[in-house]
Amino acid sequence: MSIFALKGNIIYSESREKLCIVSNGYLVCEEGISKGVFEELPEKWKDIEVKDYGEQLIIPGLSDIHLHAPQYAFRGLGMDMELLEWLDTYTFPEESKYQDLEYAKKAYEIFVEDLKRNGTTRVCVFATIHEEATILLMDLLEQSGIKGYVGKVSMNRNSPAYLCEDTPKENVRNWLDVVKGRYRRIQPILTPRFTPSCTDDLMEDLAKLQKEYHLPLQSHLSENPSEVAWVQELEPESSCYGDAYDRLGAFGSNGKTVMAHCVYSGEEECELMKKRNVFIAHCPQSNTNLASGVAPAKKYIQQGFSIGLGSDIAGGASISILRAMADAIQASKLRWRLLDSSWEPLTFEEAFYMGTKGGGAFFGNVGSFEEGYEMDALVIDDEELRHPQDITVKDRLERMIYLSEQVRFTDIYVSGKII
Amino acid sequence: MSIFALKGNIIYSESREKLCIVSNGYLVCEEGISKGVFEELPEKWKDIEVKDYGEQLIIPGLSDIHLHAPQYAFRGLGMDMELLEWLDTYTFPEESKYQDLEYAKKAYEIFVEDLKRNGTTRVCVFATIHEEATILLMDLLEQSGIKGYVGKVSMNRNSPAYLCEDTPKENVRNWLDVVKGRYRRIQPILTPRFTPSCTDDLMEDLAKLQKEYHLPLQSHLSENPSEVAWVQELEPESSCYGDAYDRLGAFGSNGKTVMAHCVYSGEEECELMKKRNVFIAHCPQSNTNLASGVAPAKKYIQQGFSIGLGSDIAGGASISILRAMADAIQASKLRWRLLDSSWEPLTFEEAFYMGTKGGGAFFGNVGSFEEGYEMDALVIDDEELRHPQDITVKDRLERMIYLSEQVRFTDIYVSGKII
Repeated sequence: MSIFALKGNIIYSESREKLCIVSNGYLVCEEGISKGVFEELPEKWKDIEVKDYGEQLIIPGLSDIHLHAPQYAFRGLGMDMELLEWLDTYTFPEESKYQDLEYAKKAYEIFVEDLKRNGTTRVCVFATIHEEATILLMDLLEQSGIKGYVGKVSMNRNSPAYLCEDTPKENVRNWLDVVKGRYRRIQPILTPRFTPSCTDDLMEDLAKLQKEYHLPLQSHLSENPSEVAWVQELEPESSCYGDAYDRLGAFGSNGKTVMAHCVYSGEEECELMKKRNVFIAHCPQSNTNLASGVAPAKKYIQQGFSIGLGSDIAGGASISILRAMADAIQASKLRWRLLDSSWEPLTFEEAFYMGTKGGGAFFGNVGSFEEGYEMDALVIDDEELRHPQDITVKDRLERMIYLSEQVRFTDIYVSGKII
Repeated sequence: MSIFALKGNIIYSESREKLCIVSNGYLVCEEGISKGVFEELPEKWKDIEVKDYGEQLIIPGLSDIHLHAPQYAFRGLGMDMELLEWLDTYTFPEESKYQDLEYAKKAYEIFVEDLKRNGTTRVCVFATIHEEATILLMDLLEQSGIKGYVGKVSMNRNSPAYLCEDTPKENVRNWLDVVKGRYRRIQPILTPRFTPSCTDDLMEDLAKLQKEYHLPLQSHLSENPSEVAWVQELEPESSCYGDAYDRLGAFGSNGKTVMAHCVYSGEEECELMKKRNVFIAHCPQSNTNLASGVAPAKKYIQQGFSIGLGSDIAGGASISILRAMADAIQASKLRWRLLDSSWEPLTFEEAFYMGTKGGGAFFGNVGSFEEGYEMDALVIDDEELRHPQDITVKDRLERMIYLSEQVRFTDIYVSGKII
C-alpha cells in the first residue's frame, strides 16, 4: 500500500468562503487519495516518506471544464471579432484541418504539452467532428497523465458543409465503440456543439445515448445576445435556450451535464439549471475577448449553483486556470461597476474555489485536499515574484493568481502520482 | 559616426490606424536616431553593420506613462478593495517605509530589474515624498539604461501624518537642486499626488516651480466616483476635477502635463484637457482591479487626445505594457457591451499605438521607427508560442499582445544602445 506525505505551505478550499491554509503542513496521500492536511504528522504515520518542498506552495490541481483543443492553434488571433463572425472566419476553417491526422498530431501535441505545463490536471475538452483525430487527442492526453473528458463534436446544421455530419449518430457510436475500455484516465463525453449546429433529431439521439452509455454531456449556453436570438428563432417552441436542450433530454435529465458561459441566462433558465444540477463553466476571458459580456458568477456561486472555470480556448487566449481566476475577479468588478451593483465582485477566495473544488466537482471528489479527495496537487515555486517585505502565505496565493505567468510548477500530482 | 541596421520582422505604428509591417526588413539607426525602415538596405548604407535577428520581431520600445515604484512591493495584493480603502490599508503604510534607504534599495532594485525585463524603455514614475529614496530610484533607473521621468511625491493634507510634508515646497526645491545635472537619461517631474492630498497653496507652488524650472508634471484625475465626489467637496469653487488643477496652474498651462486615469472626465474636463494638451495615461488593469471603471479610451484616441498606457503599479498588478495593451482592448470590449455601445472596442492596432507611439510622445519623438525618432527597439523571440500552421507577422504581433508573458526579449535598445 502506497502512502506518503508532501510538506509545504498548503492551501485549499473547503467551500467558496473557506480557504484553509496550513503553513509548513503535511498533506498525506494513500493510494492516490488524500487522508487530510495536518499541522504535525500524526503519530500513526510517523514513518512514512515525507517529500519536503520547503517554503513552496501546495495547492490542488486545476480543473478546466471548458475548452476547445483544435482552437489552441489560433489562440490570441482574430480577437477583434464577435462570436458568430469569429466562428466563421477562424474556428470552422481551422477545425476542418483535423481530418488530416498528421496536422492534428502536430497541433494536439503542442496543446497537451502546454495544458500540462500550466498545471491543469482535469479537463473537459471539445475536439472536432473527426473521430480519428479525437481518438488521437484522447491518446495524447492519456499519455500526459492529465485526467478528464474528451468529446467528439456532433453537428449537422448551420455550419460549413465540411463540418456538417451526414450520419452524426452513427459517428458517435463508432467513436464510443473504439474508445471503450481504451483508457484509464480519459473518458468520452457527448458533445453537441450548440443548439444552432444540431437538429432536434440529433440532440435527441445524443440524449438517448447519454442515458444508454451513462455518459456526461457538454455544450454551450446563452453566450452572446445574437446567439440567444438565433436560438429563439430556430427553436420557437422553446421557452428559453436551456429549454431547447431540456425538451430534447440534453439538459441534465439523462446524466451529468456541463454548459459553458451562461452569460444571458434568465430566471427560468437558471431554475432549470438548478433543478437539473447542470454545471456552469464560467469562461471570463473568452466572454471578454468575444465581447459577449460577463456571466453573473457571483450570483451563481452565492446561490449554490455548480460552477467551475473554463479557459475556453480559443475564445480565451490563455490556457492557464490561475489566469482564469484573476480574469473572473476582474470581469466581476467591471460587471459590478458598469452593469449591476446588486452582485458584488468575486473575492479571490471564490475565484480560487471555482478553479479548484468548484470545477473539480464535475470529476468527482476532486479539487480539494479534504479527506477522501483524489490527490491532485501542484507544487509551486513563486520565487521569481520577489518582494522586499515579509508576506503571508495567503498573500502569496493572491499574488500568484494575479501574476501566474511568473510562477513555476515544481511538481504536478494527479491522483497521487507525479505526471 | 555610429550607424548600423537591425534586420528582422519590423512592426511600428505611424498613426492609431496605420500599423507598418516590414517582413525581413531593415531598421537603420544613426547616432541613436532612426533613419527609417526599408525593405532592402539602401545603396548608400550597403557597408554598414547589419545585426540580423532572423525571424524575430522588432517593435518600438514600450512607454509606461504612469506607475508607482514603491507600490511594486505589494503588486497583486489586497485587490479586493476599492481605491480609497486600498490607499489607506496598503499604499500609505508601504510608502512610509521608503524613509529607510536600505529598504528602498532592496525594493527599488527589484522594481528596476523587472521593469527592464518587461521591455519598458521609457517611464513616468511616482516615487514617494522621500527625497533620498527618490534620488536612489533615479540613480538605479539611470544605471539601468531606461529613460524617463521620476517624481518625488508632494502631499500635505488628508493623509497619514507620516506622509504629510510640513515644508513641501522646500523639499521639492532641495530635491531639484540635488538632481540638477546629475543624469543623462532620467529627469525630474513635479508630482502632486492628487487634489485630495495637496492644499491649494502647495498646488500653486508646484505650478510656479513648473514654469520656473521648465519641468513636466504628473498627477491623477477622475479615477473613481468616490474620489471625484471628494474633490468636489474639497474644491467647491472648481467646476470639475480638472478645473481644480487648472485654476491653480497645474493642468498644462505651465508645461507638459500627464494625468492618470480620466475614467470619469465629463465634457468640460475633456475640453480643458484638449485645450491644454494634457496627456492621458490610460491604466486599464488598475481601473479594473480597483473596480474604478473603464476610461473611454476609444473616444480619447478617436478625438485626437494625447494618450498612452500606464501599468499603474500597484493598482495594476502587471508591469508589462504588452499586457496593458491586451487589458485595454479587453476593458474596452466590456465597456462597449455593458455600458456604452456608442464607442466601439479598441482594435489591437490602437492598443499597440497607445503602448508605443502614443505614450512615447510624452518623451519627444519616441515610440516609432519613422525617420527622426529615437531608436528604442525590442527584439522579440516568440518561439515559445508554438503553432502548427503558418501565421503572418501581424498575427504574431496580435498573439504576442495576448500572451506577452510567453515572449522573451532578445535585445532591448534605448536610443540606439543595447541596455
